[in-house]
Amino acid sequence: MKNKLNTCITIKEMQELSKKAKAAILTMTTLANSGHPGGSMSSLDLLIALYHSINLNPQDPNMNERDRVIVSHGHISPAVYSTLAYRGYFDIVDVITQFRLAGSIFEGHIETEVPGVEWTSGNLGQGLSAATGFALSSKILQINNQIYCIMGDGEQQKGQISEARRFAIKYGLNNITAIIDYNKIQICGDINIVMPQNIKANYESDGWKTIEINGHDYKEIFSAIEEAHKLDAPVLILAHTKMGNGVSFMENQEKYHGAALTEDDLFKAFNEIGFSFPYVEYKEKRQVLRGNIRKPYIVEEPPLYNFITLSKRLYEKDTDNRTAWGDALSDIARVNDDEKKNIAVFDCDLKSSVKTSSFEVQKPDRFFQAGIAEHHTVVASGALSRTGIQTFFANFGVFGIEETYNQHRLNDINQTNLKVILTHVGLDVGEDGKTHQCINYIGLANSLFNTRLIIPADPNQTYKIINFVVNQPGNYIIAMGRSKIGIIKNNYGEIFYGPNYVYEYGKTDILREGSQACMFVTGTLVNEAIKVVDDLKMDFIDLRLIYTSSPLEIKTETIVAAAKTGYIFTLEDHNIYTGIGSMIANRLVEEQVVCPLEKFAVNHYGSSGSAEDVYRSMHLDFKNLTLKIKKILGKWR
Amino acid sequence: MKNKLNTCITIKEMQELSKKAKAAILTMTTLANSGHPGGSMSSLDLLIALYHSINLNPQDPNMNERDRVIVSHGHISPAVYSTLAYRGYFDIVDVITQFRLAGSIFEGHIETEVPGVEWTSGNLGQGLSAATGFALSSKILQINNQIYCIMGDGEQQKGQISEARRFAIKYGLNNITAIIDYNKIQICGDINIVMPQNIKANYESDGWKTIEINGHDYKEIFSAIEEAHKLDAPVLILAHTKMGNGVSFMENQEKYHGAALTEDDLFKAFNEIGFSFPYVEYKEKRQVLRGNIRKPYIVEEPPLYNFITLSKRLYEKDTDNRTAWGDALSDIARVNDDEKKNIAVFDCDLKSSVKTSSFEVQKPDRFFQAGIAEHHTVVASGALSRTGIQTFFANFGVFGIEETYNQHRLNDINQTNLKVILTHVGLDVGEDGKTHQCINYIGLANSLFNTRLIIPADPNQTYKIINFVVNQPGNYIIAMGRSKIGIIKNNYGEIFYGPNYVYEYGKTDILREGSQACMFVTGTLVNEAIKVVDDLKMDFIDLRLIYTSSPLEIKTETIVAAAKTGYIFTLEDHNIYTGIGSMIANRLVEEQVVCPLEKFAVNHYGSSGSAEDVYRSMHLDFKNLTLKIKKILGKWR
Repeated sequence: MKNKLNTCITIKEMQELSKKAKAAILTMTTLANSGHPGGSMSSLDLLIALYHSINLNPQDPNMNERDRVIVSHGHISPAVYSTLAYRGYFDIVDVITQFRLAGSIFEGHIETEVPGVEWTSGNLGQGLSAATGFALSSKILQINNQIYCIMGDGEQQKGQISEARRFAIKYGLNNITAIIDYNKIQICGDINIVMPQNIKANYESDGWKTIEINGHDYKEIFSAIEEAHKLDAPVLILAHTKMGNGVSFMENQEKYHGAALTEDDLFKAFNEIGFSFPYVEYKEKRQVLRGNIRKPYIVEEPPLYNFITLSKRLYEKDTDNRTAWGDALSDIARVNDDEKKNIAVFDCDLKSSVKTSSFEVQKPDRFFQAGIAEHHTVVASGALSRTGIQTFFANFGVFGIEETYNQHRLNDINQTNLKVILTHVGLDVGEDGKTHQCINYIGLANSLFNTRLIIPADPNQTYKIINFVVNQPGNYIIAMGRSKIGIIKNNYGEIFYGPNYVYEYGKTDILREGSQACMFVTGTLVNEAIKVVDDLKMDFIDLRLIYTSSPLEIKTETIVAAAKTGYIFTLEDHNIYTGIGSMIANRLVEEQVVCPLEKFAVNHYGSSGSAEDVYRSMHLDFKNLTLKIKKILGKWR
Repeated sequence: MKNKLNTCITIKEMQELSKKAKAAILTMTTLANSGHPGGSMSSLDLLIALYHSINLNPQDPNMNERDRVIVSHGHISPAVYSTLAYRGYFDIVDVITQFRLAGSIFEGHIETEVPGVEWTSGNLGQGLSAATGFALSSKILQINNQIYCIMGDGEQQKGQISEARRFAIKYGLNNITAIIDYNKIQICGDINIVMPQNIKANYESDGWKTIEINGHDYKEIFSAIEEAHKLDAPVLILAHTKMGNGVSFMENQEKYHGAALTEDDLFKAFNEIGFSFPYVEYKEKRQVLRGNIRKPYIVEEPPLYNFITLSKRLYEKDTDNRTAWGDALSDIARVNDDEKKNIAVFDCDLKSSVKTSSFEVQKPDRFFQAGIAEHHTVVASGALSRTGIQTFFANFGVFGIEETYNQHRLNDINQTNLKVILTHVGLDVGEDGKTHQCINYIGLANSLFNTRLIIPADPNQTYKIINFVVNQPGNYIIAMGRSKIGIIKNNYGEIFYGPNYVYEYGKTDILREGSQACMFVTGTLVNEAIKVVDDLKMDFIDLRLIYTSSPLEIKTETIVAAAKTGYIFTLEDHNIYTGIGSMIANRLVEEQVVCPLEKFAVNHYGSSGSAEDVYRSMHLDFKNLTLKIKKILGKWR
């Protein structure tokens, strides 16, 4: 079944290699005058053993059936780079001379731009979640490989790891082997003093098999990898190691977690190790390189999806956008029954609310119920989305992005292709009250450089949008409220997002023409906005109404034209400081157009009641809005 | 030692009470046509038993020595409200008629505005962390009470709970009793299918004692509470219960997790229970109340701190702001040796980097090392800060707010008094690279309605700011970089933030007068800004330079005066979309002043290298800035 272990080197050769790599680790960290030599040296033998026995090809780092190694404690980059260099991925001299130089791929924490690195890490406790994503992918794509996840021991204190453990057990991810570099020292000292923990008992309590070994004994490492390979379960190898292993004065010294050796100590270490690098020469080389490495922020070749999409479904009655998303997903699943059209959907115990139940029934083997474990799920689904599988993660806004913002940030950096469906955003969550009001999703999305945000207007647009994103690479957040939305119609009573409407990212929609002022609206309040604008027209106040489905990208001409009307209003079920009001203010200043702007939005935590009542108490209802607009325009004209 | 259990009611009376409360739960949820009756009924007997045996006083809900009950699964609010009402805290009719009505304190999820509720919850998995904060407070203040934490079983899937468990064990919090309402049903069904988990083994693997009982048998509940009381360790009572207990057709039905009974079913349930409420009468009452409950967002009486503060320390050489924060903390601890001046500091395995080591040595019993467990720590320290103890939490920006944004949001809602010290913010984190670049702390703070943000300019201002916040109630975020900062001086070479400087929140500082343009700067780049402005003056380009330490509050006159110069620049080591540039754009539009604005900030993820190199590659260095400003002003004049 699985790839066979195939050790391509003798133990003696590996021990020699370990010496060279140690010298490399110490040289690069001293040259950079920073970095993490201690943990690098304790993880090193595990890395060397692994990369010399698993199925990989340095000439084709992305070959499909490769075994994958996820390094969760990304700060041991010197060990990873050295091992990969000696395994033939790149030149060790490049690593040593470029390590931690601005512009180099050899960053302080490992990242996917380095050949052989599968996942950008550095924020602890997330690696095992990523590993489960890759392991799941192998199950889906029927690739008989093994996923290894090397972790630090300190990071076992992060709760997210327990979420990942249970997920691995639930989904029978017997293709995962976790390895903990158990050197028992973290930044603040002895892990048993900093935060006592029985790591083995923790893993076993979640159903994992465990093997304990000496992490510096190659024989023991190999037999453990072999044994783990045979066991039909997720396995933890708890590898007892020494911080700073191999250099007497570094061993078990917590200070070397994050401090480089002085030059003097480096030479002492070279002596002990019995191997050295031409330090002075490399130092000069580094001086020359500094400021001259021009590594662009590489955008990977995006995956191509070829889902058959649909556009025929039409909603004519009030429907919540969630339902339209669920319908679209279900329709896509139905017409793309071809096994090769890979799709996956993740849920965190909310499937009927977030409308993924139909999909589960249709494709139970592509539906992943992760329970109440959002941190894990964002990372796992993000990792899966890097393997060519179009991946959706649906959740309430408050958990789907506010609780998991940093995991999305890491996905953003990892250039994942995750489609995040946020439901129940805004005060529209109603009776659930302030703890459940996701009123900063625009602000959060705005901070992620590689993520797009779409807020559908009504069920018809939602349906089109889902059929659009299913063939898009990259990260998208699609945000929707809870309530039923009235079908949006034009002046003539025709359905606005009708059969011929084609969704285009970055395009705004003029729902009502008007010349006396312009209102930008996004989200659930669109119906209220239409009511307001139509009502004002009867009083001869002629507002243009623009629906803004992609607030992160509004075209210049739209802004300029809006300003020309003389007054801009923004209306949103969102935090006033971080939503479209703020974005349009920024665009006005950017475009150097002058126009008064009034923001209607959420300026304190709302209460718990029907959405209608909560909007009213926030003065975001028809009556309040109409009154205010009349007052303002009366004053200004 | 501890408060004695003191059951003030017979079991039979409690059983009767349980019936009434069930009828109340069902009546209020049906009236609101929403809410969570199923879990309310499974938790009910536990709540009734607890509130009738622990030390509390409904006439004085905040009495100092009270036992505290933290309800983590806040959605069982109907059970909590009913129990509290029957325990004498308020009128059951108010609860039933106001439940989930906008403006009422009886929200969908429990909140601290309700007498008897200790912690606003609703986002699962956080309650045990809050409980450890309260338990720690009792240890510090030598209050012999017991902290109870009732949780759902589904939420045990959240990793944060494991962090809280270990913290409780490490700090010997034998005053915590956790109780799990183990009804084995979560929203998506059987917990053993949604996410298999051995809860008992999980707790025991972290060193907790466990007791299993029938959660509907008052005798068993009491003897378990009694036993837990006696054990010298954190104890879990795993209480087997029934979802929807007491109404045959509701029992073990997952649909009643989050759905109310129909009116018909409600009357059936009344019959089964043998108790009923005048439904129609209450329905009418509710109609009258709707829209007429005017509950302001109550700001609690803020705590008063009376720390002796200092102002004499002066930095004359380049120093990182972190060091000044550490010095200030240490000085405050030294001059406030009085035991009654309560202070606590939390660390997550970064004490030497975040400069809390000296404090640890001075006051080891007020220093809490929580390990790599940030989610837990933010909640625990937040809860502690509600008990009159001035609480600091110091961490790298990326973990201290980006990883824990939602926990801060809940603290914000809970009106905690936490002082969050963020270090290593911005690209200034240098070689640690993009995973460690906290470049959205202004944006995140901007979204929290009750939290203030301060970004000190240099070590002298940092020192003053810490001496200011130590006597402030409420949440403050104080953000600083990693690098050494040159001491800021005025035109005459005098120290700007010198002995006579008094810090004032909301005040900006004019570092250089100028009339041709105005630059707002915040954070680590202040020295670069001074260099740029001083250099431009030699070329007769006369910029005003304003340091902006509290970007969330900039005074109108400052903005208006800046705009009058004719051009505004903003400079920050922060995301361009969410930082001070965006805020000032918003203020310009708000104040209806017209002025071109150029933002110098971070517009993509930076690389890994020395801060100097990383700034340069982001074009945020002296040379690039000077050049650009010259170009812009040349063009505009």
